[in-house]
Amino acid sequence: MPVDSTATAEVTAYRWVPGFAQGLVRDLRVRWALEEIERPYRVRLLDVTKPRPEEYFCEQPFGQVPAYRDDQVQLFESGAILIHLGMQDDRLMPADHARQMRAIAWVIAALNSVEPAIFPLLMINVFNKGEPWTEEARPKFMERLNGRLKCVSDALGDKEWLEDRFTIADLLLVTVLRQLRGGEVVDQYPNLAAHIARGEARPAFQRALADQLAVFAENEPQPA
Amino acid sequence: MPVDSTATAEVTAYRWVPGFAQGLVRDLRVRWALEEIERPYRVRLLDVTKPRPEEYFCEQPFGQVPAYRDDQVQLFESGAILIHLGMQDDRLMPADHARQMRAIAWVIAALNSVEPAIFPLLMINVFNKGEPWTEEARPKFMERLNGRLKCVSDALGDKEWLEDRFTIADLLLVTVLRQLRGGEVVDQYPNLAAHIARGEARPAFQRALADQLAVFAENEPQPA
Repeated sequence: MPVDSTATAEVTAYRWVPGFAQGLVRDLRVRWALEEIERPYRVRLLDVTKPRPEEYFCEQPFGQVPAYRDDQVQLFESGAILIHLGMQDDRLMPADHARQMRAIAWVIAALNSVEPAIFPLLMINVFNKGEPWTEEARPKFMERLNGRLKCVSDALGDKEWLEDRFTIADLLLVTVLRQLRGGEVVDQYPNLAAHIARGEARPAFQRALADQLAVFAENEPQPA
Repeated sequence: MPVDSTATAEVTAYRWVPGFAQGLVRDLRVRWALEEIERPYRVRLLDVTKPRPEEYFCEQPFGQVPAYRDDQVQLFESGAILIHLGMQDDRLMPADHARQMRAIAWVIAALNSVEPAIFPLLMINVFNKGEPWTEEARPKFMERLNGRLKCVSDALGDKEWLEDRFTIADLLLVTVLRQLRGGEVVDQYPNLAAHIARGEARPAFQRALADQLAVFAENEPQPA
């Protein structure tokens, strides 16, 4: 099992988060990638309910998780950590420059063309739920999201993965689209729903998810 | 001048866009990077007012600009194109892996932690301007944006560039923050405003901007 308190590689994660975020926190992306390449890592836990320690912003400028370090790098942003890991191990990304860059293009697409269309929906459906403006705003933002999902669905077509094999791009897209779980949005794109299911079926994903959730279960706040 | 109709490298761009988008369209990022490394490129123009040709979606799955090709790669997503160019030329990014990954971390931060906080403001202030919901929504999204800008401002501090020298991360952050031009948001963070000014003062930026704007001026629609 990659989680190993003596490992050189370190990933930061939260000790506990509310139910809606469990299984979605972004250290999952890095855990999953590390599981795919069987590389051990230790976890450093932070408290989401308290301000992050001042010195943590030197590691992660936005105070979020994950931050990552190993004997080569000190990094933030899950996308960058995946690119770093992918450049070391061809189980995550082809070594050939042109194919590597295709994977990186899809990594950036997931982070900059798809995920930003999901974030306003979280503002509307979770953080400001029930406020009157959210009802008028929802169709505008849904139209944008659907436009993006249709493009990704068309590009994926009947392929198993975004390019000719599994890469960090698929890993990232699956974790981005999982943020829409419980809604009916993704179900309108059966090939995207199948892509998510293929990602979630990978043993490395299952182990990564179990490890993230186990920490939350251990640290579930007790009723006063 | 890098714009050269016989060049191998090709960047797609729009023939014309409305005034609010002029100087902000993302081919500017790629033009700027190519100017920094004095690499010639040709421009292929698309019409923003018409649906993109079906076959263009094979090059750029979202139908947007820029798409890019040279003798090595066929790419989409400005961030990925910059990483590709940065990996070839240390004027854009250090060759050393650890420092290269720091630049890439900031590239991803600009695209996934900063720009997504700006996009809802465009929905509110431009695309749905004047609709009642936008007034209630604005403070929620402004709070988010300010949170992100404060973090970037703190990380930049009194440094000239995000890391110890100019990289594609600075190029990208400048083009992301320029989307807030005309508002007073960035002026609350004098070091970010100065960072933008330093980027815009680079001769490579000036040439790239002039070349993008020249195409729009040539193709300005004539009143009927």
